[in-house]
Amino acid sequence: MGPHPAVAAIRLAVRRVLTDILDDHGRTHGRLPHERSSSPLVLVACSGGADSMALASALAFEAPRLGVRAGGVTVDHGLQAGSDLRAAEVVVRLRELGLDPVTSVAVTVGREGGPEAAARDARYAALDAAAERHGAAAVLLGHTRDDQAETVLLGLARGSGIRSLSGMAAVSGADGRYRRPFLQLDRQTARTACMAQSLPVWDDPHNADPAYTRSRIRHEGLPALEKALGKGVVEALARTAQLSRDDADALDAWAGRAEAGVRDADGRLECAALHALPPAVRRRVLRRAAIEAGSPAGSLFARHIEEVDRLITGWRGQGAINLPGRVVARRQGGRLVIRQG
Amino acid sequence: MGPHPAVAAIRLAVRRVLTDILDDHGRTHGRLPHERSSSPLVLVACSGGADSMALASALAFEAPRLGVRAGGVTVDHGLQAGSDLRAAEVVVRLRELGLDPVTSVAVTVGREGGPEAAARDARYAALDAAAERHGAAAVLLGHTRDDQAETVLLGLARGSGIRSLSGMAAVSGADGRYRRPFLQLDRQTARTACMAQSLPVWDDPHNADPAYTRSRIRHEGLPALEKALGKGVVEALARTAQLSRDDADALDAWAGRAEAGVRDADGRLECAALHALPPAVRRRVLRRAAIEAGSPAGSLFARHIEEVDRLITGWRGQGAINLPGRVVARRQGGRLVIRQG
Repeated sequence: MGPHPAVAAIRLAVRRVLTDILDDHGRTHGRLPHERSSSPLVLVACSGGADSMALASALAFEAPRLGVRAGGVTVDHGLQAGSDLRAAEVVVRLRELGLDPVTSVAVTVGREGGPEAAARDARYAALDAAAERHGAAAVLLGHTRDDQAETVLLGLARGSGIRSLSGMAAVSGADGRYRRPFLQLDRQTARTACMAQSLPVWDDPHNADPAYTRSRIRHEGLPALEKALGKGVVEALARTAQLSRDDADALDAWAGRAEAGVRDADGRLECAALHALPPAVRRRVLRRAAIEAGSPAGSLFARHIEEVDRLITGWRGQGAINLPGRVVARRQGGRLVIRQG
Repeated sequence: MGPHPAVAAIRLAVRRVLTDILDDHGRTHGRLPHERSSSPLVLVACSGGADSMALASALAFEAPRLGVRAGGVTVDHGLQAGSDLRAAEVVVRLRELGLDPVTSVAVTVGREGGPEAAARDARYAALDAAAERHGAAAVLLGHTRDDQAETVLLGLARGSGIRSLSGMAAVSGADGRYRRPFLQLDRQTARTACMAQSLPVWDDPHNADPAYTRSRIRHEGLPALEKALGKGVVEALARTAQLSRDDADALDAWAGRAEAGVRDADGRLECAALHALPPAVRRRVLRRAAIEAGSPAGSLFARHIEEVDRLITGWRGQGAINLPGRVVARRQGGRLVIRQG
């Protein structure tokens, strides 16, 4: 008798990603797989919740079969009383699965960008450091298709275009360090796989706290959308993420090529040449120019770029446009000047 | 004392669109505005609901000031008992506003594509016919920013990419016949403008009927999203529509140009050349080829194109792919053959 279907599903997802990692590792180290002298180390980032415990169990099962070393990291955010004990418990469970090395990292969460962003920044910094310290080839993250759908809705609420609809990438970070094997798997499958393997899981109370936007999306927004639109909404949102990501990549590449063609000999942007570009490409060129001039990408919204765009498409002698980071855009004699101060 | 702010807002929105229509009319008829011999006719499509009654009132106010003739059309869908009387009442109200000509058109709603799509098809056919009959330069539609947000969510549920996120266009139809002056105005403003002008409005019971997907989105899905994400959701969705439309247009144009470059001397698609395209562009080229081969655009989903794409990017000798409209895609000797039968 084979494993439970949910267990088979999580293992298959992890096996595919480990195979990709081995291919990349082989290429980077200039050897064919059978000539490899040392096997790569893959870490799983684990909170003790169902998604990442399922991921850890699948990694522990698949890694030795593929000649991969498997370890784990848990991050203690220090945001709740007893979080250090919780982290120690996760370490024990990961060791019981056969992972080695397993480490717990305590971080201090700042305040920048709100509580969710600050926790995320601290977590990734800790994971980066752990990966460097252990020389890990990759770090697996337990984000599921449901997390992806929530991320798309959060991006939609910003109204800042298709890049913010593209959710999380299957591969991200420096040298593609972070991998998300469960991005096409639903949360229920991960949960079922834990039950089928009798793995104890921990439900983070933050996930149900309505003070967090993501929690409200998860428990109110998305269920209401499913009720209105049908059960396929999560899948549709996840597919939207993938298609939007590819579209955004292609348009960014186009804007990169177009930029050279709209600058004069002195490198200044020519309004007539900008005007001739498709609006989608022109807005991306303007955004790149604003960021290059020192405007912080995270504070530069669609409405800022729209206003700069009107210097090109709706010119009636209007004054300079102020952008975040003390960057100013103005039109001067057929040229668009974007600079700080 | 000026008009109520809501009345000023609807009039400004209509004035801007009428100015655009006059510009286009002048160009088409090869005359400068002051040399125009006949003033153009603009019709408003009016259901008697708040949005289109507000639109009709603003058109009646602005048109004579701009030298535009203003008329109205109401469509009797025959879906409810007494709908003929309702249409007759709308005709009276539009005449009271000073519109002329005003006509009521009875249509028979079929079943194709579901009740909402069938009603829409019948409505636009009737509006097209009325516009032709009266020689109208444009037909104004009362869709608001809230309608746009709902349309984006409906498109999101299809998960078929950014074109379906681009909602309704401000200008659409043959020769840009249809114009939507209220696309950036919220529904509440239209409703307030009716109250401020003491215009009686009719609430279509269909709009509150949970049997309709759009009604569920309006009364359950969108309010739940607003509760989770904040009041800016409608605006964010409307902005997403505009950005997605521009992005989709630019990528369609790219795919159109790319197509010539990936065909061999006999016009067959070369797999190697397709492989070199960015995924976003390649998928659009494949979609165009499938539609050209006879696959109906409305039945061709993202998952179909993904499967055809795997003949290029994941080739392992797989068989032919069946597409809607009895179209078959297969790989033969480095060429992709897409044809009917």
